[in-house]
Amino acid sequence: MRLRFQRSLDDLKEKLLVMAGMAEQSIQRAVEAYRTRDLSICDLVDHGELAINRFEREIDQMALDLLAMEQPMAIDLRFILAVIKINADLERVGDSATSICDRVRDLQAFPVADLPVDTPKMASLAAAMVRKALQAFIEADASVAESVLSMDDNVDKLNDTAYFTLLNLMKAQPELAPQALNAIMISRSLERVADHATNIAEDVIFWVRGADVRHHSLNSESQSA
Amino acid sequence: MRLRFQRSLDDLKEKLLVMAGMAEQSIQRAVEAYRTRDLSICDLVDHGELAINRFEREIDQMALDLLAMEQPMAIDLRFILAVIKINADLERVGDSATSICDRVRDLQAFPVADLPVDTPKMASLAAAMVRKALQAFIEADASVAESVLSMDDNVDKLNDTAYFTLLNLMKAQPELAPQALNAIMISRSLERVADHATNIAEDVIFWVRGADVRHHSLNSESQSA
Repeated sequence: MRLRFQRSLDDLKEKLLVMAGMAEQSIQRAVEAYRTRDLSICDLVDHGELAINRFEREIDQMALDLLAMEQPMAIDLRFILAVIKINADLERVGDSATSICDRVRDLQAFPVADLPVDTPKMASLAAAMVRKALQAFIEADASVAESVLSMDDNVDKLNDTAYFTLLNLMKAQPELAPQALNAIMISRSLERVADHATNIAEDVIFWVRGADVRHHSLNSESQSA
Repeated sequence: MRLRFQRSLDDLKEKLLVMAGMAEQSIQRAVEAYRTRDLSICDLVDHGELAINRFEREIDQMALDLLAMEQPMAIDLRFILAVIKINADLERVGDSATSICDRVRDLQAFPVADLPVDTPKMASLAAAMVRKALQAFIEADASVAESVLSMDDNVDKLNDTAYFTLLNLMKAQPELAPQALNAIMISRSLERVADHATNIAEDVIFWVRGADVRHHSLNSESQSA
């Protein structure tokens, strides 16, 4: 029984990792669609979104079945709880990808503008955060998770820079307002992806440190606050 | 034992409702701060955000303790899972309120502009969605939850209208770009609040209909898909 339960936990983890890969890919595709203005990539993102939504439901159901199966130990409970929360964040990473594609579609009506912001850099940072948060999850490593939290500051800074750079551009060249505004929105979506990665990292810390609290001394409680 | 468990479920529900009230209030305050440009209200929102974050952790812990206490029945499991997910959404409603306050602070550097968008209307719609989603939760009423989903379309439309109206304004009067852009960002934050309300409503449906599937016939499965 216990062995089967452990195998089920592994299956759940495996499935969440597939979901994470899909979410990460959807962001990379969306930004590629933006860079190339290729709407066929947006169609892929939309298809991927349906698959991500289906995965989300399946993972929730697996988590629920595991909770119902037998009374899991505290550390397993925290793990399952972390999976449920990470699952929701990954689904919203997928939503951000479709939001970016909405902007790409909107942009088709306007000429290409060479904007002074590095959206692909921000995208690769945000995607790296998702990847690293999942690495922390795989390795149950709170210190890796903490490094994700500090990466978030960089994304925030890039987002702020993009905001003010593009605002000034709109003031100086109002005819570029549609392109600049779309770039601001995309930058905002990427910042949101980074926020989801941060949430995932926090869930990993909650899971790992919470487990520590249970396994070690009482005064490590403050550590996990 | 069973009675104590039931009482603990009630406590959990109660606590989530307090959290929901705090989240709704934070949005109303943030929009009031925007309307009046009163930064002291933003300070209240920031303070409230700390309390919301603390509540989120406490609710998660209560949910975890309940799962650990005894093997809950399927319907209780779904309820607890819904609480965990709704909890995360409410915390992010609080985040949206602080995002709005960031924009209000940014706006202090610029003269007041009379913009052709009805932000308070959008705010009250978004807050009403949060309220209604929680009503659906209290009453375990999937049809109330479904009405939230249709309200979301209205908020999306208001957000789209604000976007294009303000984009045109920026093109025509680039000197108003900072104020217009802040209004777009606030409108976007409110749209996100509406998305969280939608997520909450979906969780209520998942909980209630999932329970139905377990209590009635097998072929009602398709109903909850």
